[in-house]
Amino acid sequence: MGLNHFDKNGNAVMVDVSDKPVTHRTATAAGSIQVSSEIMAAVKSGNVKKGDVLGVARVAGIMGVKRTSELIPMCHPLPIQKCSVDFETDEDAGMIRVFCTVKTEGKTGVEMEALTGVQVALLTIYDMCKAIDKHMVMSDIHLEEKTGGKSGDFCFEEK
Amino acid sequence: MGLNHFDKNGNAVMVDVSDKPVTHRTATAAGSIQVSSEIMAAVKSGNVKKGDVLGVARVAGIMGVKRTSELIPMCHPLPIQKCSVDFETDEDAGMIRVFCTVKTEGKTGVEMEALTGVQVALLTIYDMCKAIDKHMVMSDIHLEEKTGGKSGDFCFEEK
Amino acid sequence: MGLNHFDKNGNAVMVDVSDKPVTHRTATAAGSIQVSSEIMAAVKSGNVKKGDVLGVARVAGIMGVKRTSELIPMCHPLPIQKCSVDFETDEDAGMIRVFCTVKTEGKTGVEMEALTGVQVALLTIYDMCKAIDKHMVMSDIHLEEKTGGKSGDFCFEEK
Amino acid sequence: MGLNHFDKNGNAVMVDVSDKPVTHRTATAAGSIQVSSEIMAAVKSGNVKKGDVLGVARVAGIMGVKRTSELIPMCHPLPIQKCSVDFETDEDAGMIRVFCTVKTEGKTGVEMEALTGVQVALLTIYDMCKAIDKHMVMSDIHLEEKTGGKSGDFCFEEK
Amino acid sequence: MGLNHFDKNGNAVMVDVSDKPVTHRTATAAGSIQVSSEIMAAVKSGNVKKGDVLGVARVAGIMGVKRTSELIPMCHPLPIQKCSVDFETDEDAGMIRVFCTVKTEGKTGVEMEALTGVQVALLTIYDMCKAIDKHMVMSDIHLEEKTGGKSGDFCFEEK
Amino acid sequence: MGLNHFDKNGNAVMVDVSDKPVTHRTATAAGSIQVSSEIMAAVKSGNVKKGDVLGVARVAGIMGVKRTSELIPMCHPLPIQKCSVDFETDEDAGMIRVFCTVKTEGKTGVEMEALTGVQVALLTIYDMCKAIDKHMVMSDIHLEEKTGGKSGDFCFEEK
Repeated sequence: MGLNHFDKNGNAVMVDVSDKPVTHRTATAAGSIQVSSEIMAAVKSGNVKKGDVLGVARVAGIMGVKRTSELIPMCHPLPIQKCSVDFETDEDAGMIRVFCTVKTEGKTGVEMEALTGVQVALLTIYDMCKAIDKHMVMSDIHLEEKTGGKSGDFCFEEK
Repeated sequence: MGLNHFDKNGNAVMVDVSDKPVTHRTATAAGSIQVSSEIMAAVKSGNVKKGDVLGVARVAGIMGVKRTSELIPMCHPLPIQKCSVDFETDEDAGMIRVFCTVKTEGKTGVEMEALTGVQVALLTIYDMCKAIDKHMVMSDIHLEEKTGGKSGDFCFEEK
Repeated sequence: MGLNHFDKNGNAVMVDVSDKPVTHRTATAAGSIQVSSEIMAAVKSGNVKKGDVLGVARVAGIMGVKRTSELIPMCHPLPIQKCSVDFETDEDAGMIRVFCTVKTEGKTGVEMEALTGVQVALLTIYDMCKAIDKHMVMSDIHLEEKTGGKSGDFCFEEK
Repeated sequence: MGLNHFDKNGNAVMVDVSDKPVTHRTATAAGSIQVSSEIMAAVKSGNVKKGDVLGVARVAGIMGVKRTSELIPMCHPLPIQKCSVDFETDEDAGMIRVFCTVKTEGKTGVEMEALTGVQVALLTIYDMCKAIDKHMVMSDIHLEEKTGGKSGDFCFEEK
Repeated sequence: MGLNHFDKNGNAVMVDVSDKPVTHRTATAAGSIQVSSEIMAAVKSGNVKKGDVLGVARVAGIMGVKRTSELIPMCHPLPIQKCSVDFETDEDAGMIRVFCTVKTEGKTGVEMEALTGVQVALLTIYDMCKAIDKHMVMSDIHLEEKTGGKSGDFCFEEK
Repeated sequence: MGLNHFDKNGNAVMVDVSDKPVTHRTATAAGSIQVSSEIMAAVKSGNVKKGDVLGVARVAGIMGVKRTSELIPMCHPLPIQKCSVDFETDEDAGMIRVFCTVKTEGKTGVEMEALTGVQVALLTIYDMCKAIDKHMVMSDIHLEEKTGGKSGDFCFEEK
């Protein structure tokens, strides 16, 4: 199987999905950001009093999911039916992990939507913490799993 | 120095930059995506005939830079004066590296713009290659360097 | 029934509507803006010659309806199938009333779309008349009625 | 003084501000939403555990401010330099009050930005509480004060 | 048949399509831009080395198609299922021709989407070549054909 | 002078304008749409009663101008300081002519903004009249004149 999103002359194209069946589809993406212990402490103390970094990042991620087809050139617009963004903080590793789950009924999947939600949430954490330290690194952003569609279910496995 | 983007009650706020001086500012962000050898071959053969994955990702990244303040809640809108997105492919490592450089004259920096450009370019590569393999992983996304502004110049150093 | 748009941990979420049936749905929202007699006279003389304030506000309101899910964080995107914005001017009360009706077939309702249409139309009237007087007040913005969906029909009643 | 935003033939126009001086400008708008006691209790208990309605509405309001010139047809785009959204809850009156303050340096004011921030915050509160009760009413949305610009300072006075 | 998009009082309205059946729909629009021989030579040499004007214009056109309902006030949002933008260069006539084909299943057609794709692609060519010569003229932009929907198939004929 | 918007390797780039001086700039673009006599009659009778096609198209054109840098990939965002859209109807020729004038103070010109305003206004006329006849053709879209900037003043001359 070759690159999708190109026609036989190699020109970029939003591929024709009109004959594909509408199916229930879900996708979960994950990613993380490595932060200093000072940032971790500030984020973990996050609550309505001290500044809720993860709360703002969650809203940004969910709103970003809805803009996916505006950002990714060949991505089909899809009616998002569910979207959640969750976080795990691992103090020892200095890691904040982000998970984004998206659901739709459509002719294409929501992998790109879930990945975009993760990226926007990570960028928002970066933005809100960068006054403390700019050495944060975002990494391990990948598709965790998806269901539905012709290509079937997918579950990420470390190779 | 604490979390920016929160007021003294812990409420999220787009911080007041009205009294900051306008200075020339640049930022370069970098990131990479790990791909299978099959994807690497498809991308490297990219040209007008076979499908220019990196050309499409470059356009997407540059357009994404201009949407930064729409995506990141507390980010100030800035008049982007220059934006470039560049790629390096490392076949041995199975890595495509993305670099995004942004310039402005403004009261705040363009770090978030450069990082957003990298993320959108990476997402576009993922989107255009995902029919071949969905195990791609985006990583090492960070601010490479910035100049201008009160906090001065910054250059990322591995710690 | 509690707050929607939060999960069991209190985290904001775009709620899962994938199992809800698609039904015909309508919503009508209303609101008003109190204006000075000078503004009322200028608006009422509105026509192609003198400046059609309400015509511009109608276009803005309809276009605003289509942006609802971009503005309201947890709002599902919906395929708008009909949208109208209407006005009533009450010279004695110094009131311009705005009504916005929206239709869709979908898994969630169009209440937020109709309310957003009213708000954007009101803001546009304010913008176009503010050189005369800035004491305008927008008020009484509410959902007038809705049909369709599991929660059934709704008709606003003064309490 | 007549309607701004129309030319001498009555055609809508984004007025020429190119000869106006750049000045520091601020604007504060206010508005409120009347809610049932059940909604008030749910909102007041709002925190990271129970669902932070006002936190989400604040983010939405700030992001909405940045979209003002996209929503209001004749509104000039402006570089927002500060934006905050604050809330007051009045349990006895069943009122949540919203205040939005915006700053810029520009040739036109930020009145519309502040008002748009209030409207989007109010709509978001409505959206997140509407499963409990749809009789909420948004009202008293007005410009509280502004500074800067040729028309000078303005402070809303009840007439 | 009269003007669509107005109600019986002459007020602009997004017409009610809720009772129309969902059908497969396609539309192809075409247009061209007349350029100097110097521009034609630069564009024709376009490839990854010399600058791929048409590649960038193709991406812009496809992304523009997805923004149609944001730009055209009374246009219904539609789930685009396929979009391609193609070019023909006619050196003798000094013409670059643009074709945009769009598919959906919906209650209204994709004529406006196809036309918008052509316009945005043409504007992008103009933007990227204007340093050489600003006398470019865009012309002959029209609907080439459409299928599906109550009004049936349409094929443009020179009159 | 070669293609702008490409670097020396032929990669698309938003060119660096940070060292260019800020100057007053204006641009006027023009274009036309050929319509049937039936459409011409419907448009010319346009007023608040019968449906103001040109009024809606004017609002759309002005709003489109503000979206230019989102639509055209390598276009710099600019603070629009004035925008007007005007129409001329020529019944004998079956032509509606559109003119769009834009002003800014900036480091780059507003040619693309003026052209985009014309295109969006033309598309809106097409959309609102297409129920009568789909043979409309948009043509002769060009830059009429510009002032300001290093490349100096420009006035379109038929060649």
